[in-house]
Amino acid sequence: MGAFTEYQANQELTKLAENPIDLSKDGNLSVKRLSHMVQKSLGLTLFYGTERVNDKVIDTLCHLSDEAETFEKMHAMQSGEKLNRIEGFESENRSVLHTAMRDFFDRQNEAEIAKDAAKTAYNELEKLKGFVEEIDKQGFTDLIQVGIGGSELGPKAIYLALEAFRKPGRRVHFISNVDPDDAANITEQLDLSKTLVVVVSKSGTTLETLTNEELIRRRFLDLGLSPENHVVAVTGEGSPMDDPKRYRKSFYMWDYVGGRYSVSSMVGCVMLAFSIGMEKLLDFLRGMSAMDKVALEKDPRNNLPLMSALLGIWNHNFLHLPTTAIIPYSQAMSRFPAHLQQCDMESNGKRIDKQGTPVDFWTGPIIWGEPGTNGQHSFYQLIHQGTITVPVEFIGFAKNQYGKDIEFHGTTSQEKLLANLFAQSIGLATGKHSDNPNKSFPGNRPNRVLLAKQCDPFTIGAILSYFEHKVAFQGFIWDINSFDQEGVQLGKVLANKIIEQFQKKRGNEDYEKEFPLGAAYLKALDEF
Amino acid sequence: MGAFTEYQANQELTKLAENPIDLSKDGNLSVKRLSHMVQKSLGLTLFYGTERVNDKVIDTLCHLSDEAETFEKMHAMQSGEKLNRIEGFESENRSVLHTAMRDFFDRQNEAEIAKDAAKTAYNELEKLKGFVEEIDKQGFTDLIQVGIGGSELGPKAIYLALEAFRKPGRRVHFISNVDPDDAANITEQLDLSKTLVVVVSKSGTTLETLTNEELIRRRFLDLGLSPENHVVAVTGEGSPMDDPKRYRKSFYMWDYVGGRYSVSSMVGCVMLAFSIGMEKLLDFLRGMSAMDKVALEKDPRNNLPLMSALLGIWNHNFLHLPTTAIIPYSQAMSRFPAHLQQCDMESNGKRIDKQGTPVDFWTGPIIWGEPGTNGQHSFYQLIHQGTITVPVEFIGFAKNQYGKDIEFHGTTSQEKLLANLFAQSIGLATGKHSDNPNKSFPGNRPNRVLLAKQCDPFTIGAILSYFEHKVAFQGFIWDINSFDQEGVQLGKVLANKIIEQFQKKRGNEDYEKEFPLGAAYLKALDEF
Repeated sequence: MGAFTEYQANQELTKLAENPIDLSKDGNLSVKRLSHMVQKSLGLTLFYGTERVNDKVIDTLCHLSDEAETFEKMHAMQSGEKLNRIEGFESENRSVLHTAMRDFFDRQNEAEIAKDAAKTAYNELEKLKGFVEEIDKQGFTDLIQVGIGGSELGPKAIYLALEAFRKPGRRVHFISNVDPDDAANITEQLDLSKTLVVVVSKSGTTLETLTNEELIRRRFLDLGLSPENHVVAVTGEGSPMDDPKRYRKSFYMWDYVGGRYSVSSMVGCVMLAFSIGMEKLLDFLRGMSAMDKVALEKDPRNNLPLMSALLGIWNHNFLHLPTTAIIPYSQAMSRFPAHLQQCDMESNGKRIDKQGTPVDFWTGPIIWGEPGTNGQHSFYQLIHQGTITVPVEFIGFAKNQYGKDIEFHGTTSQEKLLANLFAQSIGLATGKHSDNPNKSFPGNRPNRVLLAKQCDPFTIGAILSYFEHKVAFQGFIWDINSFDQEGVQLGKVLANKIIEQFQKKRGNEDYEKEFPLGAAYLKALDEF
Repeated sequence: MGAFTEYQANQELTKLAENPIDLSKDGNLSVKRLSHMVQKSLGLTLFYGTERVNDKVIDTLCHLSDEAETFEKMHAMQSGEKLNRIEGFESENRSVLHTAMRDFFDRQNEAEIAKDAAKTAYNELEKLKGFVEEIDKQGFTDLIQVGIGGSELGPKAIYLALEAFRKPGRRVHFISNVDPDDAANITEQLDLSKTLVVVVSKSGTTLETLTNEELIRRRFLDLGLSPENHVVAVTGEGSPMDDPKRYRKSFYMWDYVGGRYSVSSMVGCVMLAFSIGMEKLLDFLRGMSAMDKVALEKDPRNNLPLMSALLGIWNHNFLHLPTTAIIPYSQAMSRFPAHLQQCDMESNGKRIDKQGTPVDFWTGPIIWGEPGTNGQHSFYQLIHQGTITVPVEFIGFAKNQYGKDIEFHGTTSQEKLLANLFAQSIGLATGKHSDNPNKSFPGNRPNRVLLAKQCDPFTIGAILSYFEHKVAFQGFIWDINSFDQEGVQLGKVLANKIIEQFQKKRGNEDYEKEFPLGAAYLKALDEF
């Protein structure tokens, strides 16, 4: 049995969860409650009066945090201890140092390994600065980032979030899927003579990425262009992709930065330096680093990501809600939920603890979401009146990005957007009775709101780091390894078997024997 | 208590679910099973050998279908009976006739109301044909669709799915969110003199849509262009938007077509006729209509959407799996899951049956998903090794769309894509034991695969209709009203209250009294 269920706080929370506050009862969601259950850091404000908690629950969650030693574990992580491991079994056995990728600003971590990692990362940033100056002189307009998983989701989410801050005329595109239509669609629309290509693969062996790179290289050659003038590598030092003959430049990434935590490494930085420039990139990293420092606070009441992690655990493990919706009221953040889906589900979708013992409680929830107000016209029906309760994490901004807004019927669009966000947060909590059962809303549906001034580089950096650490803290509390991803291996192994079957089939060799189940699907293809 | 739990088949399925087939046990997932548990229609093949069912379960699900009178209800729906109602309470009390929007091809429904609806829809198509011929002569390159919910999600999903079939130089963009940055970002990038704008709102009063329309109209005026030459309306006849002075043309939609089922009405057709032309649009509608006919078959074994609905109910109500992931192995279908999320969750996220009685079982699941192979590098970790089982509906295609593909290491990209899809389907079912618990896969995770030749207009039409009817059948079986959306009203009412508070605040009037909870959030904004 995992330690999680043995904590004293766990027993207490289980009891408290038998009769949590009912937010739909008259007066329970009060102005006082809304105004007091608020926590602030770095210009972000978390409103959690619409969660099903009271002071006693919060106190006990803080106690849980103590018992689980979240403070010690976060310090250990940021100091480079090998947290990516399973005791007694073969495992990656690595440090987890994505925080070092942005630890340049103040109060640097003093552990030697963390300092070294930060220094090496800073060297890459210096390299990048020189590279960008070179590029700026050469009239490049477009950049294609070729990568998948962490090499796409995080970078794309941040690129879109900061599109309003782009340098004039600069655009970034992403090719990820091995689906050949993906690359064909994008390369067709661009002037490749003015296009940079950034290929991202830590190992230098990712199937989808290499395939797409090859497809793009051939396209360059077809047009009489030299790929080696256009294609840049972001890869591990010494990987098959670390080859100056084939790449205009190589930038490095390291084993101690997991793909889903790699936005602040060169995986995201090359693309961001191209699109928004070095200065705004540094603002973004500054925001991340600042939140990394907040995550080092011991008291959850001073530690925004830790408080959010605890509220999530309350909803998931004690109120038994299997999913979490992340809903930014910001079109710029349209791909943020998809990135968090990866960050969270790949980190915490685990079934053994750090000693290799199967857990007997729920680890990571299913994360999903789309931006508001769009979701209101889509899945909110189920959130308000469905039979499965969905806790929601709202994100909103006081001001818009472009400064282009209109007053229409007496309010701006941004005000309408915020009005909708606040309305949903309140409505989900209070519900509303009607004598017509179809117009009745049960309410009592927990949610919280993270509010900031504007979706700008610093803020989006702080928000990204907030979620990274929320995920890490939940993993610490469950005592699982949030930093490996062995669960993706079986699919790879079987896919390679079937790829081999395709090869054999093409060569008219017997392809059925080795893996008959795969062959069954291949045979079925003949009918199409 | 809803009738669902009283069906004899329900009791039997509950018993069968105590000990369903374990797909991870050696030999249970056999080639024979994979090859036999297959159902075909219209070039689509559904493989369900990787679901946790046996013949007995399938037989009992078919019995459930009989008891729930799915056959009769689907006939009633397509014949225009007023299925959108709650007995004994005020409700929309409408027919549900999205199938009439494409019922032009063969075996037309003979009910008078359905025939009339089809005829009226066909008139709009004729109008559209003339309009498109006019547009074709005038050099328009871009179209902006302004709409939200069903006016955006479905059309966008289908536009992207068929982007490969676009007329040269034609592009479509979507503005949905009331977030002003959304519209600003898109209008900035286009030559508005060559841009058509299609504004979609059935009521002609949708807040987000009218706000965005106004923003775009002002932008046209700023550029010295006349909005009335560019802006087209899709709306209900007689709505505030049905105004020839303000719109270049109006196309109509009707009460008996719900927003989330409106892709095949003018909501999707105007945009599709512009992007892929009338002929391919008709192919798309032909595919939808053909699947509508399949949905009229009584035996689930001849009725693909009904079989899928039953498998879904098995996973959800009997194996107690709260969510369903929809994962197309096709980048073109990247927004299909978001559309199905709306279609399904807004239809079946209900808590009362058609007599107004609260149900005591789970209605609609939480629907989520992203395209493969991308998901493999993201949330698949949880799907393989997490603590909450996620049933998956895979979608795949034998051939790509662009015909641009490369052989790399002996296979094409399309083959690699398919290899991954098949590998996941098998791996999730069989799992794999390892002595290292972190490398062990429990397997036994249910999934099914829908395979077709190519993502072309006819096929995507058939697939869309397949999912529309899957959702309708599940609603029929649960005896809920899948065609209203009262659950979105509370948010609208509260949002309007807060919008009023913003107005008052701006005018320095007292804004707190009316709705103190909203005011609490508004006050907090002052700090930003």
